[in-house]
Amino acid sequence: MTKQRDVSLALGVLKQRFGERFLVGESVREQHGHTTTYLENQPPDAVVIANSAEEIKQIVAVCAEYRCPVIAFGAGSSLEGQLNAPAGGVCIDTSALNQIISVNADDLTVTVQPGVTRVALSEHLRDTGLFFPIDPGADASIGGMASTRASGTNAVRYGTMKDNVLSLKAVMADGREITTASKAKKTSAGYDLTRLLIGSEGTLGVITELTLKLHGLPESIVGGVCNFPDIDSVCRATIQTIQYGLPIARIEMLDAVQVKACNAYSKLTLAEKPTLFVEFHGSEASTKEQSETFAEIIADFGGSDFQWTANTEERTRLWQARHDAYWAARALRPGTDAIVTDACVPISRLADCVDATIADIKSHNLLAPIVGHVGDGNFHTAVIVDLNSPTEVENAKKFAERLSQRAIEMGGTCTGEHGIGQGKKDYLHQELGSTVDFMRLIKHSLDPKNIMNPEKIF
Amino acid sequence: MTKQRDVSLALGVLKQRFGERFLVGESVREQHGHTTTYLENQPPDAVVIANSAEEIKQIVAVCAEYRCPVIAFGAGSSLEGQLNAPAGGVCIDTSALNQIISVNADDLTVTVQPGVTRVALSEHLRDTGLFFPIDPGADASIGGMASTRASGTNAVRYGTMKDNVLSLKAVMADGREITTASKAKKTSAGYDLTRLLIGSEGTLGVITELTLKLHGLPESIVGGVCNFPDIDSVCRATIQTIQYGLPIARIEMLDAVQVKACNAYSKLTLAEKPTLFVEFHGSEASTKEQSETFAEIIADFGGSDFQWTANTEERTRLWQARHDAYWAARALRPGTDAIVTDACVPISRLADCVDATIADIKSHNLLAPIVGHVGDGNFHTAVIVDLNSPTEVENAKKFAERLSQRAIEMGGTCTGEHGIGQGKKDYLHQELGSTVDFMRLIKHSLDPKNIMNPEKIF
Repeated sequence: MTKQRDVSLALGVLKQRFGERFLVGESVREQHGHTTTYLENQPPDAVVIANSAEEIKQIVAVCAEYRCPVIAFGAGSSLEGQLNAPAGGVCIDTSALNQIISVNADDLTVTVQPGVTRVALSEHLRDTGLFFPIDPGADASIGGMASTRASGTNAVRYGTMKDNVLSLKAVMADGREITTASKAKKTSAGYDLTRLLIGSEGTLGVITELTLKLHGLPESIVGGVCNFPDIDSVCRATIQTIQYGLPIARIEMLDAVQVKACNAYSKLTLAEKPTLFVEFHGSEASTKEQSETFAEIIADFGGSDFQWTANTEERTRLWQARHDAYWAARALRPGTDAIVTDACVPISRLADCVDATIADIKSHNLLAPIVGHVGDGNFHTAVIVDLNSPTEVENAKKFAERLSQRAIEMGGTCTGEHGIGQGKKDYLHQELGSTVDFMRLIKHSLDPKNIMNPEKIF
Repeated sequence: MTKQRDVSLALGVLKQRFGERFLVGESVREQHGHTTTYLENQPPDAVVIANSAEEIKQIVAVCAEYRCPVIAFGAGSSLEGQLNAPAGGVCIDTSALNQIISVNADDLTVTVQPGVTRVALSEHLRDTGLFFPIDPGADASIGGMASTRASGTNAVRYGTMKDNVLSLKAVMADGREITTASKAKKTSAGYDLTRLLIGSEGTLGVITELTLKLHGLPESIVGGVCNFPDIDSVCRATIQTIQYGLPIARIEMLDAVQVKACNAYSKLTLAEKPTLFVEFHGSEASTKEQSETFAEIIADFGGSDFQWTANTEERTRLWQARHDAYWAARALRPGTDAIVTDACVPISRLADCVDATIADIKSHNLLAPIVGHVGDGNFHTAVIVDLNSPTEVENAKKFAERLSQRAIEMGGTCTGEHGIGQGKKDYLHQELGSTVDFMRLIKHSLDPKNIMNPEKIF
């Protein structure tokens, strides 16, 4: 057994075994490193296109032998440097593991390979009367979504990835594949390894199969939009809606700057004021009732121009605009990039946190539209920067740092759904202190050679 | 640092420090061991009544020094020997840690000490318009409910303990207290230690504080009862209800034997046929609509005598009878005990599993009423036995073994909500195989001296 890292020996074995699916070209390696933030691109030494869980076991076993880092790649849409290879090593591209293995309608579950993307899954389910609710902005892979504990606009009603995965298969650091749980809907059988792997960002194992919970498509879906005089009113209306017990499916805030961006990018004509996009799921009578109750609630907080519709086309247009918010924000200043923040606070502190953040944006002359999954107390700013300007990047980083600290001081977290990766390691310590020591102990116990996505989270 | 276990030295230190709250009487030790199943009572060497998290830290630190086992005790209602002390040691009685620290209405959360019981919490919340949905049969402690990943009759809509705890504090095996997560509703900040501790049955740490999710009390609650010609029809009606997307709050099956028991014990007059107890939560219009839709669904499966009511008294009487099912079962044969099973299978296999189990009961001449959280695929049999009859106990154990294996073979689990404890260690291996190796690695990394509730789960 090799005692020291020897990446080149691992590469030699893998090259021989995988032939044309062993890639070392510069551009392909760069594409598999990290590309979407200010974080430096650190490409792996090689990319291996895996075609099966069996191959992933082989790759990890070889890497374990030579202590070579292993980084699993799904769709490349993570935001905190999760895919960078600071210690070099092998990137396992799982995008060819894109089979939907079985839809189990009676159980409301689906079993998929990790490379299936959320859009592909959604299209596959279209005619089944079932849907999978987790919808991060990008067309992420399901394996990647599990790895970062992703969520999106439906989480207020349907929860996050942690709530919608029943069981996983994963190849652990010694090359063995495990099944984390049975396919029963509930279990008390030992430690919850499903939830431990979800959100572990590839640092404990490579996910090779997921059994997900599905939900019955509601008989009626009603979408709506309304605006408010200020952010505080948006937040207070949201709190009231949640407290009332209204089973709202989506409640998304856009600040005035983001509305302006969406109007331009998605050709909408919304009033450029703090705005809520909402959606109700249920029977026809129930969605009508929910919409009416919501209208009453927002009236108390100065909400106006509330329009709602069951028309699928209009609704889809609205939500497509919401999903394109990131691109709309970047289009405010063409040729630039965006640094995206991810604070999440107890909802009682949401107005305080967003207000303070807007004041911060103004006082530092930043361009940073805000969108928020406000029902969960989670909001993103997209700080628009020219990555070629060190000053702009530095200012954006300092702003992001202040925002993370603000969220932590308010009892919240520096990351609601994007993960820690490389970008938020310091904040994790600020947020959880010595708790991180115990995470490290777990990491060391399951990956004693530190080959699984090293230098992430910690 | 002591290298070997020396319980007596630990006891000496704790006796001096805790005085009258250090108890060694035989009856108190027996009460803190395990009393509710066929499992032998294995009392701890001493019981310490803790009054604060600070004291728990001190006790664990002393026990760590002398490698003395530590077993946390809440209400003593666990069912798989979780509280036994096979290696001796100290039981920390947390029942005096019964403070509800804060109700945070805006956030729909409550922060409690671990010794608060579910009934005490429910009474405390009565006038707030909020409720905590997890309701195991016994008046368990919240800390204990987290430790066994408990659930109950509301899980089909509101989830289990894993879904309703936002953050924990716990004293780990080295005596340090950690906070597992912020109080934000969502987080992607590192490993999910909250979910790792939930269901770990005291083997990784002692829970000292819990922040729980609350839910708004529905405007309208409607309860109902109906019966079916056979078990298969009950299961198929349940699957259809879930698939339809009806947001049913409770859907509980009782087989004919259990109905007979409940009629006698709770003075009901239900037809002695396979029966469903159901409950709907929502607005008045919505619960009415749900009840009507449910009536239509069950009609297709021979469901009859469906009566539903919004009357609180009638509803409470029905659900009290459901909660007393265990005592009703035991009263079928006074002076006996019950060995309770806890299989949970994918709902598509529920009818098969229950049918096979009933056939097994009949062919072995057992008395074993069945109740089921059928919306989750989880059901319990209470095998009525005279614990003084070795033959009866042996037959019951063999039945329980066959049932666990049957559930596992059908893709399910040997335990939906009671945990592994001592009673189901073998089944855990049958169910998850080498996955258990990784659980052991985690256990060893967080508790290298094996002092936290040793000889449980593994």
